[in-house]
Amino acid sequence: MDRTRLYRNGVLVKESFPIDDVSECVGEPGTVVWFDICAPTEQDLTKIGEELGLHELAVEDALHDRQRPKLDSYDSHLFITAYAAELVEQKIDLIELSIFVTKNALVTVRENADFDIDAVVRRWDASPEMARYGVPYLLHGLLDHIVDGYFEVLQPLDDQIEALEDELFNGLPDDLRPRHRQTFELRKNLVRFRRLAMPMREVVGSLLRRGGEVLDPAMIPYYQDVHDHTLRAAEWTDSLRELLGNIREAHENQQGFKLNQIMKKVTSWAAIIALPTLITGFYGQNVPYPGSGEPIGFWSSTVLIVAGSLMLYHMFKKRDWL
Amino acid sequence: MDRTRLYRNGVLVKESFPIDDVSECVGEPGTVVWFDICAPTEQDLTKIGEELGLHELAVEDALHDRQRPKLDSYDSHLFITAYAAELVEQKIDLIELSIFVTKNALVTVRENADFDIDAVVRRWDASPEMARYGVPYLLHGLLDHIVDGYFEVLQPLDDQIEALEDELFNGLPDDLRPRHRQTFELRKNLVRFRRLAMPMREVVGSLLRRGGEVLDPAMIPYYQDVHDHTLRAAEWTDSLRELLGNIREAHENQQGFKLNQIMKKVTSWAAIIALPTLITGFYGQNVPYPGSGEPIGFWSSTVLIVAGSLMLYHMFKKRDWL
Amino acid sequence: MDRTRLYRNGVLVKESFPIDDVSECVGEPGTVVWFDICAPTEQDLTKIGEELGLHELAVEDALHDRQRPKLDSYDSHLFITAYAAELVEQKIDLIELSIFVTKNALVTVRENADFDIDAVVRRWDASPEMARYGVPYLLHGLLDHIVDGYFEVLQPLDDQIEALEDELFNGLPDDLRPRHRQTFELRKNLVRFRRLAMPMREVVGSLLRRGGEVLDPAMIPYYQDVHDHTLRAAEWTDSLRELLGNIREAHENQQGFKLNQIMKKVTSWAAIIALPTLITGFYGQNVPYPGSGEPIGFWSSTVLIVAGSLMLYHMFKKRDWL
Amino acid sequence: MDRTRLYRNGVLVKESFPIDDVSECVGEPGTVVWFDICAPTEQDLTKIGEELGLHELAVEDALHDRQRPKLDSYDSHLFITAYAAELVEQKIDLIELSIFVTKNALVTVRENADFDIDAVVRRWDASPEMARYGVPYLLHGLLDHIVDGYFEVLQPLDDQIEALEDELFNGLPDDLRPRHRQTFELRKNLVRFRRLAMPMREVVGSLLRRGGEVLDPAMIPYYQDVHDHTLRAAEWTDSLRELLGNIREAHENQQGFKLNQIMKKVTSWAAIIALPTLITGFYGQNVPYPGSGEPIGFWSSTVLIVAGSLMLYHMFKKRDWL
Amino acid sequence: MDRTRLYRNGVLVKESFPIDDVSECVGEPGTVVWFDICAPTEQDLTKIGEELGLHELAVEDALHDRQRPKLDSYDSHLFITAYAAELVEQKIDLIELSIFVTKNALVTVRENADFDIDAVVRRWDASPEMARYGVPYLLHGLLDHIVDGYFEVLQPLDDQIEALEDELFNGLPDDLRPRHRQTFELRKNLVRFRRLAMPMREVVGSLLRRGGEVLDPAMIPYYQDVHDHTLRAAEWTDSLRELLGNIREAHENQQGFKLNQIMKKVTSWAAIIALPTLITGFYGQNVPYPGSGEPIGFWSSTVLIVAGSLMLYHMFKKRDWL
Repeated sequence: MDRTRLYRNGVLVKESFPIDDVSECVGEPGTVVWFDICAPTEQDLTKIGEELGLHELAVEDALHDRQRPKLDSYDSHLFITAYAAELVEQKIDLIELSIFVTKNALVTVRENADFDIDAVVRRWDASPEMARYGVPYLLHGLLDHIVDGYFEVLQPLDDQIEALEDELFNGLPDDLRPRHRQTFELRKNLVRFRRLAMPMREVVGSLLRRGGEVLDPAMIPYYQDVHDHTLRAAEWTDSLRELLGNIREAHENQQGFKLNQIMKKVTSWAAIIALPTLITGFYGQNVPYPGSGEPIGFWSSTVLIVAGSLMLYHMFKKRDWL
Repeated sequence: MDRTRLYRNGVLVKESFPIDDVSECVGEPGTVVWFDICAPTEQDLTKIGEELGLHELAVEDALHDRQRPKLDSYDSHLFITAYAAELVEQKIDLIELSIFVTKNALVTVRENADFDIDAVVRRWDASPEMARYGVPYLLHGLLDHIVDGYFEVLQPLDDQIEALEDELFNGLPDDLRPRHRQTFELRKNLVRFRRLAMPMREVVGSLLRRGGEVLDPAMIPYYQDVHDHTLRAAEWTDSLRELLGNIREAHENQQGFKLNQIMKKVTSWAAIIALPTLITGFYGQNVPYPGSGEPIGFWSSTVLIVAGSLMLYHMFKKRDWL
Repeated sequence: MDRTRLYRNGVLVKESFPIDDVSECVGEPGTVVWFDICAPTEQDLTKIGEELGLHELAVEDALHDRQRPKLDSYDSHLFITAYAAELVEQKIDLIELSIFVTKNALVTVRENADFDIDAVVRRWDASPEMARYGVPYLLHGLLDHIVDGYFEVLQPLDDQIEALEDELFNGLPDDLRPRHRQTFELRKNLVRFRRLAMPMREVVGSLLRRGGEVLDPAMIPYYQDVHDHTLRAAEWTDSLRELLGNIREAHENQQGFKLNQIMKKVTSWAAIIALPTLITGFYGQNVPYPGSGEPIGFWSSTVLIVAGSLMLYHMFKKRDWL
Repeated sequence: MDRTRLYRNGVLVKESFPIDDVSECVGEPGTVVWFDICAPTEQDLTKIGEELGLHELAVEDALHDRQRPKLDSYDSHLFITAYAAELVEQKIDLIELSIFVTKNALVTVRENADFDIDAVVRRWDASPEMARYGVPYLLHGLLDHIVDGYFEVLQPLDDQIEALEDELFNGLPDDLRPRHRQTFELRKNLVRFRRLAMPMREVVGSLLRRGGEVLDPAMIPYYQDVHDHTLRAAEWTDSLRELLGNIREAHENQQGFKLNQIMKKVTSWAAIIALPTLITGFYGQNVPYPGSGEPIGFWSSTVLIVAGSLMLYHMFKKRDWL
Repeated sequence: MDRTRLYRNGVLVKESFPIDDVSECVGEPGTVVWFDICAPTEQDLTKIGEELGLHELAVEDALHDRQRPKLDSYDSHLFITAYAAELVEQKIDLIELSIFVTKNALVTVRENADFDIDAVVRRWDASPEMARYGVPYLLHGLLDHIVDGYFEVLQPLDDQIEALEDELFNGLPDDLRPRHRQTFELRKNLVRFRRLAMPMREVVGSLLRRGGEVLDPAMIPYYQDVHDHTLRAAEWTDSLRELLGNIREAHENQQGFKLNQIMKKVTSWAAIIALPTLITGFYGQNVPYPGSGEPIGFWSSTVLIVAGSLMLYHMFKKRDWL
């Protein structure tokens, strides 16, 4: 089943027809066509590009991934590269989407099946009355879905960071490596997300700037809304980054404090052990010290050892070194 | 009792009437209406939205929280999201307010009862003669109250930071964790505050920029004043952040110094204990050293131990290692 | 004695007359009035505000301190908040000045007597021929004095930083706390100064931008000159901050190096003490080792102890560990 | 064989003719000439400069290297300095190219043979139909090749960083120096690349801005495409830099953790050794302790030593200190 | 011999005449005058200022140093403050130059003889044919010389940094202080250079911006060239700063690694020494252990000590702890 749709005068008249039938309907006045291509070959795209009059550079870009979010405007159409985000096993997965926007056709090209195009269709169907605004309505639904996805990715990161914060003051675990790794992965995720999702601000922003000429004024608030969302996602990302920095600093402080504490403990025990060693050393001298070779010597040595050690132990305990 | 007000030709004529009566008065020339809705249901808002001709996107935004401060302008009205700030148990609490601004109505939507709307009313009543400027006068009173609240939140943070600074050079406490935690919480507060309250600058700034067309010139200085306050709050926040960074650096320096000092102390005591151990070792040898097996041996050993330890103790004391 | 002045057609005609006489002369063509109010009550200011037609918001701002440097322009006058700086006991003291600028009157409001208004008067008297430019001439003298004061504050800070730099490579003192404190206070001073004095750039800059309409062209270079000075003060402040950062890094490096050195020293001494302990342990065994119970044993033990310790001492000395 | 080309009316008519023949064809209408000069002498360039009417400053710049990427526009021609990048033995090599762009001639000047000019020629030959756009077509092919080279340099750096990341949590190797060195070299490469390749954004950007007047509209998307690539390279570079920072922080955390662990291990072993020392000290006293001089003494001492040491060993093992 | 020059219609007609003769020739049409004043008194400058009609503020600025690079434009002339840079004993020396630019006169004021004005004269003489462009030609020669001097200062700094980098991985020297000091001085130099030389970008940039009205179009590329050089110097400075940061991080990593290594070594030796101490302790017990009081005891003790120590030594050696 192909993912295609044909609207005529704002009404959905045909759905899921073969892509090859597209050429018939494209270009009819009052007609708006959408079709979606998943993991296309070069031939597929070239053929469609010719039918819709797409620029060869745009078609080429749609074939190569590792682009950046961008909006290229050609004579007869726009070309948008966008990234949808998804959290898979604590890692942000970024899925590239190439979008061709002509006067009466929207073509979405996905590199693989990871992106949930059904959700976009559901979003369109939720407000069928707006279909009369044609391609901008379809494009809005698509972008809105993508950008909303950013929040679903940021929320769990925010939660993880909050969990890290809560843990932070519950004492330092013995094995710090899991915490280090988590912080590392979080920041890496944020860096990647920032790089591939954040230029979406510019994309939606420049759609909006040139919107005055092309868009029906009634659509503008909707694009404004998507734009607000991209701004919010960007600010949230920056904020998470700062919170991560805050965690890092607090963690460093704690590690420094822990080192101090370990040193105090080690020192205390060293002192507690050094004392009896000193005393037995004294009683091991081959000189006639008081009590040498006599039971009183043994008892005095033992008392000195036990009493001295206990005294030191209590002294350190009181100073909170142990 | 509902929070409503009706002004006619700049005079307050009715107050606290039921919200349902609003529809009657909205739209009469010379009439200005304010009403406040606390924790509304979707139905409540939709109904009001229809009566006042509010855009569905704005109504939807008012229902969801976790927006960012923003100013959306629609054909017939403005929509503002603002955050009031409050310090609750050392934590900055940010309360979202949605504000609809039409030609002759101001609607405030609060997510809960935390925001003190009475204070805004008192502020309005303090300068009733300005009521003739209509909605801009009401909006100004509201924004002014919100932004003034920022200073009431920043002042205690500033005081806490100053207290931290004063403590800083009174020596390092044994348990550094409370200080670490306080620094951590302060910075976290500043990050959150920055993210949710600072974009208010843009909101008031863009109200001001488009003010020329809409506002009575006499109102402009008042908005300028609010704008100055948002700038001041922003600069203050940045300043606090830097002071916090300064504290952190000084604290790190101190911790490093303390570590050095502990090491010196430990080393000194180790040396003081090592000496008698060495001497008793010498006197414990099974060889005929001078005084072995004789009282003179015991006395010389004891004298060496006591004198040597005291000498070391004084030496280290003098060098300030102990 | 009140601080007042009356110029008529560019000539100083009256001085130190009571403020209450102001109302008579304000408004006469060709007349320029200055008067200075120190720590005014609300009533004082309200009265003057009414006489000169000052905006109530400006009057209110003049009563509250903790403003930021700013330039508000009202219909009939400008309102400037500026900060003069002074170094009192190594701490930058910032004194707020509120300035009202009407067509033919300059009013300066000081929160207390800390600001040396006499110096401004002397500056005016140094170039009486320029008095024909009226209020802009007076304002220039005032701002010039304030901004020149910034350099008198920055120079001692610069000197302190240079002194810190010179000290830096004269070895690390035993007690680092005074140095830490000094660095801390210096940075804190810079942060405060930056926050309250630096927006003066904008104030003078925007005076200059709108100057074309109001100022006599002959006054423009003078304002340009003040503007240059604010820029220089800002760049100097940033530069000092960076030098402080540089000092901090060098200091950290040194502390790390010192720690390494202490560790080497401690280790060396530990080794030097461990050797005799080992030897006496050997000679303390209850087994017939060569020389046990015989003088030769004592001598060999003693020789081993002394020779071994000296050898180790020289070895560590040579490697620069001691 | 000289690297020269002559196009007439968009068709390649002559290739590899001697540079000296250039003067004949330059200036004929409908003619486009390219020639490439490798490591020219001052005379070579001066001669060509005179023939093509190049500005003396541009000619001088082409002779000196250590320029920065820039676009200078002179009356009759443009002068571009660009840097191609290559990865040679893990080090980014930056090769300077000077480019003169006149109405109907493109001159490329290379400082040495490192830059692969053949690849540019192949790129031109891949789309001969575009040759009708003349010099902009040639220039685009050249710039496109240079900028594509940036990705071939960034990809291995990205791979190295990813490899570093994977290694990071496989435990800390004993010798950290190779890792330190790699991080150091990576960052140094990024700094150099940033400095010499990144201003290419401005160069292509300003070509594009002034493109409207000069370029055939059909060429604009192609230049836009190159511009997008420079942006992507810049963002990628910044991203790599941040990932490197992330690695550095994680590495520091690990080093701190390792230090803590070593200290724990050392402390544990010290305690395990201290115990038998204490016990033998006790049994070495010259006092009649229980079992002194009797086999039971030997056995009890031995049992205490072995049992105590084992107990400590297990205790530390359980707490994960060993 | 005074430094003066008189050009008439683009030809140098008189040189090194007394400054007092200047008044005769200034103002003749077709005449361009240059003169240079070194360490002038206030009177000197005031006199010249009056003759050339210079603004009193500019004259005053020329008398005080500690200005910043700036371009002030007065009615009849420009006033430029510029800084030449020189490397004296590893320290950047910044020499202030005040430049007055009138329609047909260039006045250079040097605070002392450090600036090599002869080099500027040589530069002018290298292209006498351009003298017809008058004052802009002279000014260009001067600025070009100053900015070229920046590279002569940055190159040695770059070399020093490269030398530091090469040293970095040749092992850590025992005494790190020279390295710390060098890094410190380098960064300090960069901070000073940045502050006093970098605003030259703005100076040349704004000369260029207002150039369209004043400059002969043929001079514009020359000023553009100087501007490019200031940009390059700025980028180079930033780049050096980053490389210094990179060195610092690598150095810190190394110091941390070194500390780890020292700790391992110390620990290893401590263990090697602890073992024989333990053994002799055992053989020093006053209990009938196997071999007590018999030669076999001595031999077994000795064997245990030697074998155990060697075993530990090899074990640590193998693990690369020693």
